[in-house]
Amino acid sequence: MSTKHTKLTVKDLQPAAGNGLFDRRALFKGGAALAAAMSGYSLSKSAAAETLEDAEWMITQGREVPAYGAPSPMETEAVGLLKRRSSGVIGQRRTPHHLLNGTVTPSGVHFYVGHAGLPNVDPDQHKLLIHGLVRQPLIFTLDSLTRYPMETRMAFVECGGNSAPFFSPEPIQDTVQALHGMSSCSEWTGVMLSTLLEETGIDPRAKWYISEGCESIAHTRSVPLYKGLDDAMIALYQNGERIRPEQGYPMRMLLPGWEGNMNVKWLRRIELTEMPGMTTGEVRSYADVLPNNDVMLFNFINEVKSFITHPSPGFMMNGPGFYEVSGIAYSGRGRVSKVMVSADGCQTWAEAALQEPVLPKAFTRFRLPWRWDGGPAVLQSRAWDEADHAQPTRAEILAWRGQSEKVPAVTSFPSHHYNGPTSWSIEPDGEVNNVYV
Amino acid sequence: MSTKHTKLTVKDLQPAAGNGLFDRRALFKGGAALAAAMSGYSLSKSAAAETLEDAEWMITQGREVPAYGAPSPMETEAVGLLKRRSSGVIGQRRTPHHLLNGTVTPSGVHFYVGHAGLPNVDPDQHKLLIHGLVRQPLIFTLDSLTRYPMETRMAFVECGGNSAPFFSPEPIQDTVQALHGMSSCSEWTGVMLSTLLEETGIDPRAKWYISEGCESIAHTRSVPLYKGLDDAMIALYQNGERIRPEQGYPMRMLLPGWEGNMNVKWLRRIELTEMPGMTTGEVRSYADVLPNNDVMLFNFINEVKSFITHPSPGFMMNGPGFYEVSGIAYSGRGRVSKVMVSADGCQTWAEAALQEPVLPKAFTRFRLPWRWDGGPAVLQSRAWDEADHAQPTRAEILAWRGQSEKVPAVTSFPSHHYNGPTSWSIEPDGEVNNVYV
Repeated sequence: MSTKHTKLTVKDLQPAAGNGLFDRRALFKGGAALAAAMSGYSLSKSAAAETLEDAEWMITQGREVPAYGAPSPMETEAVGLLKRRSSGVIGQRRTPHHLLNGTVTPSGVHFYVGHAGLPNVDPDQHKLLIHGLVRQPLIFTLDSLTRYPMETRMAFVECGGNSAPFFSPEPIQDTVQALHGMSSCSEWTGVMLSTLLEETGIDPRAKWYISEGCESIAHTRSVPLYKGLDDAMIALYQNGERIRPEQGYPMRMLLPGWEGNMNVKWLRRIELTEMPGMTTGEVRSYADVLPNNDVMLFNFINEVKSFITHPSPGFMMNGPGFYEVSGIAYSGRGRVSKVMVSADGCQTWAEAALQEPVLPKAFTRFRLPWRWDGGPAVLQSRAWDEADHAQPTRAEILAWRGQSEKVPAVTSFPSHHYNGPTSWSIEPDGEVNNVYV
Repeated sequence: MSTKHTKLTVKDLQPAAGNGLFDRRALFKGGAALAAAMSGYSLSKSAAAETLEDAEWMITQGREVPAYGAPSPMETEAVGLLKRRSSGVIGQRRTPHHLLNGTVTPSGVHFYVGHAGLPNVDPDQHKLLIHGLVRQPLIFTLDSLTRYPMETRMAFVECGGNSAPFFSPEPIQDTVQALHGMSSCSEWTGVMLSTLLEETGIDPRAKWYISEGCESIAHTRSVPLYKGLDDAMIALYQNGERIRPEQGYPMRMLLPGWEGNMNVKWLRRIELTEMPGMTTGEVRSYADVLPNNDVMLFNFINEVKSFITHPSPGFMMNGPGFYEVSGIAYSGRGRVSKVMVSADGCQTWAEAALQEPVLPKAFTRFRLPWRWDGGPAVLQSRAWDEADHAQPTRAEILAWRGQSEKVPAVTSFPSHHYNGPTSWSIEPDGEVNNVYV
């Protein structure tokens, strides 16, 4: 995690790629290189030029400590972006990635997509039924589940409709929250579905299972049984505490690396079947019509992806000089193996540092030192995963999936599983814009 | 993280230690062993015996999704335990470990110790001064700090006064929240102090630095400079978002593995010095008088420790049968290397499974399958770290540190750095009590 700092030689100070991107090793080798890279631009101020005065909050009694804390009242921006459906109900909350750092998403701003609001589930009355092609159908209460062996893991969840704006013919000018905010990462703890299926037994004819939620629309999705026996979890805890209402309190299906809406929330029923249920979620909402009019069903995996969060649209660059370029990478196939960053619109590339520990199917924070000379620049990141998949170019995705005529909605096509690159242009006046390169 | 499940042989089902503790490998080898171990005790119910009815929340519209979420309104217990000082101000908030799971502590219930409430710091006005024995004193704003290279790491913070009740002559009957709740673990992101000191330069005479907070009492503590150049961080983010008010918004000193109050919150000043400041925090509040009247100063490191959270006092066992024994282990010296668990009052021991990834100076969740026969049992955990330190026995600690005459307070002696074992007795009626073994 932390890194011993050793002295750098001048050679380490050379940029690794065009337009001022330094080598990631400068981050590991320590402060001397960075101080040199930063010098002349005065990120800090001489203490002689300013005095440290006692602010108003140093001479007054502080606020009372609450039993359950909240962010500072000054942090009014770092909240979810809410979007209403035509029905009036809030259908989405998007994560403010441009204002966050690290790898965990705070539970308060974890993304939400839903159709019927938050059911007021009483955990003492809630039951989970596992039935269908099993030897012995069983009912589990929250109390009984907490006696089973549990596992804890970091995992991202991403909506199939995340990043849909990148299918539009012109780049949408908005924040990374609006563009990529339907992807979040938590520490989840719960009981492996395989543990419960050992108890119910499995009829050899079973090849799928159908999960059903207990919210008023009873959202249902089919999952191949092999995923259920691999890493599917009945998640009971999120970031240490009971799972939040927006993520399915008191329990959800967690399918690490698979399309968000398959991770059924407010889970109440699992039915083992021979065939998929062909539910609305799979044959309409999250199916995609391809340019040749074929319909793509069961596109489960959130493929390898990355985007730069710092800087990103909404930031104003505060003059030339040193900046850390930082962002998020992840893959539904396992660990991120490499992230490359360009500052000159994909002419030259430097390898980013990946924050340890790099965990499978979880957010990985990447970072790279950058010295902006104040001229035009285009930042882009591209990630690889341990399955040796790379982010495709936007052109490659459009050739396969087509392009939207207008800003895509979740119900327009194509609008799902965009995992191409994201490019930010840095204007000489300091503005950051979304561009297609 | 997740584990491929393979079939068990009957041999794997044998207990690994007395009173029903199974081998940790049963957790890795999968469900068959556990299902067998659990059979006959009906954690679950046959679906034939019960029907799944549509609850009230399935037939009504749900609640509106907030821009910044909160736990379910049903989760009224999983909040911090507040204690007031004689001045009336809330001096402590303790983490409800008995109701949490995983390794991250939710920011809302991260422990807090303080004297003057939460200062209403304006992040745009706040400044950090680094001065004293430096080449060039500098002032940093939050804006300037966010341009520096950052690191992200998991780290626990523990108050020196945590676990003080174990110095009392008789075991205190209370929850693990009251007994061990002044220790919490977060993902922290910020700028390494070493990066900023490369920029200020260091006078060779400097051996210490003094951190000062900007709350009304201006809490100050001295830190050896070697720690500042090792893994000390100016933490700006906690669990992905701006650090919470209770943990020092907008910035704190983070000293992974070192006594909580040295991790100065609401940080505004760092002065490099030849000698420690001999501040109230170090010569009175967190100094300990030993039985021979020597005074122990500068007892920095939170040594290796563990305690069982499930089951623990406040739980009522729900009849004999299968339970997962689970708890938290950590060390200020690095990674936890091993946790042993006994169910028969330290007669026999079984090795617990450690949840991956095991990170240095961070909470590690340990787990072990247990089949309670309904008779008397005493659960105890004992942890080792990669520096090969083990938790001492309570007798070893008392021989060195002495014993309190009454329930110790932070200002009585001895009351600090108890890292001995914790033992829970399980009574035949299902009650869980704190006992000394």
